Amino acid sequence: MPSLDELNRAAPDEFSRAFGPVYERSPWVAERACARRPFASRLDLELALCGVVRSASEAEKLALIRAHPELAGREARDGALTRESVREQASAGLGTLEAHEAAELRRLNACYQERFGFPFVICARLNRKDAIIGTLRARLANTREQEIANAVAQIGEIARLRLLDLLP
Amino acid sequence: MPSLDELNRAAPDEFSRAFGPVYERSPWVAERACARRPFASRLDLELALCGVVRSASEAEKLALIRAHPELAGREARDGALTRESVREQASAGLGTLEAHEAAELRRLNACYQERFGFPFVICARLNRKDAIIGTLRARLANTREQEIANAVAQIGEIARLRLLDLLP
Repeated sequence: MPSLDELNRAAPDEFSRAFGPVYERSPWVAERACARRPFASRLDLELALCGVVRSASEAEKLALIRAHPELAGREARDGALTRESVREQASAGLGTLEAHEAAELRRLNACYQERFGFPFVICARLNRKDAIIGTLRARLANTREQEIANAVAQIGEIARLRLLDLLP
Repeated sequence: MPSLDELNRAAPDEFSRAFGPVYERSPWVAERACARRPFASRLDLELALCGVVRSASEAEKLALIRAHPELAGREARDGALTRESVREQASAGLGTLEAHEAAELRRLNACYQERFGFPFVICARLNRKDAIIGTLRARLANTREQEIANAVAQIGEIARLRLLDLLP
């Protein structure tokens, strides 16, 4: 990984390729942030990326939420997760669920998707598996508008930690 | 409330007084952001405030977390909440808890404070009361380090919504 200083001076393509994975399957976030170069620090870049998401349209925010896989879901079983998601889900203990935990998470994920029309998003690295399952159950009590905002906030935390991996 | 444009040109004291309440009993966040004026937009100011918190020391982050009241706790019973907290807790339905809900929340808040050494913080406006109680129960499963990060993230959401009230 080149340094931030190098990426500040690199071609836009290279910058976007480097930071694209900070947002799950949503390279447009890094692409738009690229126009705001140079960034003085990782924090400066983190805030610019966050600003791109905050100023995106409602449709774009929904697309960003929907770009996330179900936790311990089909993509995980099919080996179709991004490299970042594999590591994040594993860190929370989602790779080694007991059968009853996996069944409960599957049931809750389906309820959530049915209720809101998008997958449940939580920063897996900031939660253990019991906290993830309990928070998913709890957030089912919220409104769709609240859950869009909660998902966007969690995506911000996922991005912050992914960026910290790229620019330690 | 003066406009952002006016506050960009106002004395530092006036700026800090206007935006101080965005962070619960922690005027230092707005005071530090003041040095970054002028702000082109509400989003620009929101990101600067967020940057002040992100770049604060661990001790300052803990003090910020501890500046928050217990939800439906002693401060609420004593009428000692900030005006912002009163409204936020009411919006989640925490002002009209059934006796068994109030008792459960009191029990969980005490567990959380005992386990981590700071109060449970969640953006009340982004959660209904059942979601708040369930998320508190769930987050007890996390580590202290995870909960410091979760609290800081939730404080960012509280601030975002308070700022939206001040600069609609």
